[in-house]
Amino acid sequence: MAVYTEVSDAALTDFLAAYDIGGLLSYKGIAEGVENTNFFLHTTMGSYILTLYERRVRADDLPFFLNLMEHLAGRGLACPQPIRNRAGTALGRLCDRPAVIVSFLDGVSVRAPNAHHCRELGRALAALHAAGADFGMRRDNSLSVAAWRPLFAQAEAQADGVAPGLARRTRDDLALLEANWPENLPGGVIHADLFTDNVFFIGDALSGLIDFYFACTDAFAYDLAICLNAWCFSADGAFDRGMGAALIAGYEAVRPLEPAEVDALPILCRGAALRFMLTRLVDWLNVPPGALVQPKDPREYDCRLAFHRQAQGAAAYGVAR
Amino acid sequence: MAVYTEVSDAALTDFLAAYDIGGLLSYKGIAEGVENTNFFLHTTMGSYILTLYERRVRADDLPFFLNLMEHLAGRGLACPQPIRNRAGTALGRLCDRPAVIVSFLDGVSVRAPNAHHCRELGRALAALHAAGADFGMRRDNSLSVAAWRPLFAQAEAQADGVAPGLARRTRDDLALLEANWPENLPGGVIHADLFTDNVFFIGDALSGLIDFYFACTDAFAYDLAICLNAWCFSADGAFDRGMGAALIAGYEAVRPLEPAEVDALPILCRGAALRFMLTRLVDWLNVPPGALVQPKDPREYDCRLAFHRQAQGAAAYGVAR
Repeated sequence: MAVYTEVSDAALTDFLAAYDIGGLLSYKGIAEGVENTNFFLHTTMGSYILTLYERRVRADDLPFFLNLMEHLAGRGLACPQPIRNRAGTALGRLCDRPAVIVSFLDGVSVRAPNAHHCRELGRALAALHAAGADFGMRRDNSLSVAAWRPLFAQAEAQADGVAPGLARRTRDDLALLEANWPENLPGGVIHADLFTDNVFFIGDALSGLIDFYFACTDAFAYDLAICLNAWCFSADGAFDRGMGAALIAGYEAVRPLEPAEVDALPILCRGAALRFMLTRLVDWLNVPPGALVQPKDPREYDCRLAFHRQAQGAAAYGVAR
Repeated sequence: MAVYTEVSDAALTDFLAAYDIGGLLSYKGIAEGVENTNFFLHTTMGSYILTLYERRVRADDLPFFLNLMEHLAGRGLACPQPIRNRAGTALGRLCDRPAVIVSFLDGVSVRAPNAHHCRELGRALAALHAAGADFGMRRDNSLSVAAWRPLFAQAEAQADGVAPGLARRTRDDLALLEANWPENLPGGVIHADLFTDNVFFIGDALSGLIDFYFACTDAFAYDLAICLNAWCFSADGAFDRGMGAALIAGYEAVRPLEPAEVDALPILCRGAALRFMLTRLVDWLNVPPGALVQPKDPREYDCRLAFHRQAQGAAAYGVAR
């Protein structure tokens, strides 16, 4: 959570002159987003988020993300809508960085979700998958199974210093996942990072989804597997089958899973857990001096992998059939 | 600029239950304020700032600051208005810290002010002094002349490592200021920290003053001297007499200076510069490991002191008579 780039009033006023969003009333750097700098922006016409892209988000990918958000918002999904300037483009440049203004979404991230939140999330996830069906662009998932071994190579030598036996466990998981990773599941646009920070609620109602900067083209059920990992483990590290069942039921109320997706769910969950364990592990071992962001603990996902290794089929995750 | 304390949705919802400000729509940690954690808060009734007090602000002083803001807002000054909860108190407790909700003020801080901004600031400063006239509490200025020698003692041994000759210059300044510091000037409530960050403009109009956490009872002209230091030096370090004249003229349009205040202005400016040089120097030499805040450079005020030492009377600052 950090503001990496200071934006002066003069630079912002110049930038806003290209937009039809009214006069500047105020802006505040907000401590949100690990990868980018975000400002809350208030103008005479409304509230917005201004994002400056700092790193990891590749500039070549930005048109995919921005067009996707515009497409999904146009289909009625509650997500940030990129604002086009008078030249008709959403992607601008500010303080020598790619910069975008999107509509501001109200809502609060729920730190400790319950089964109700999981059910709402499931519905929204399926609605996202449906809304993306006629989106014309594609982007390969650069953090799927093929990326995990190279990621691990960056961390293998130091892995056992983070958690005893982690290197051996990861080598075994990698071999199993590479040999058995499912292909040809139903797919399309997935969010791929729908953690609690990226889902807003107002009271009990889900009010919006944000942060589409890992979105890509992949299996729908993999997105569900990411959410099962991110939402359905309690603070003590145990999987909450009731929350899993609520998430899956919410999803299936909008888009029923096919039998192949149900069968694949355990391995997809295991793969999703490995993906987040590995990126966290690499970040954990490579904290730059003076970092503004506290890295997330990879051991949390090492524990989740222990659950996935022993899970007996999709029923263990709450699938009713 | 940092968020020192994370506040969960559950903790915030509990806290807000004691207030009549509507239902929570969103909150964002904002990267503003060196001393405290601030959140932008949006409810069904409006926009607010939630502040958690972290350090340096002594809890005993909070009633002074909060009552002062309420008093000034009640007199029509554009400043944050503390919101009282249903029990009638503005000072609450959240995440084991003193916490306050104030009204949100629109406006933008001008990084590179011009003479127009200085004139508006002068008017607002005099209006603040007038609005505080019938405020019933007092708080001694804990960072005035008596505090400077003990501050310097914390830094003297390392001062020359920051800027060659700084220790000798500071000893000489201290001796001169202690011997000649003016007493019995007209006084009352002063802001004491009215840097550009703490003054908001919408377009060309001054829209608000914020951050009253150094406010105290002291000479009005000392507040003006702080502003002359903070606003009227250009980026190259030179004093801009035109901006000084605009600031003073704006002030005198509301409250004319007495002859004793005009006479004291040079030494007050020199003292104000020493005060900020010293606090910056101590912070500069005591950056804690893992600090989220970049300390401000004391050498900026060392340069300003060089100007003050050679300034010939109040005319050098832009006083017309």
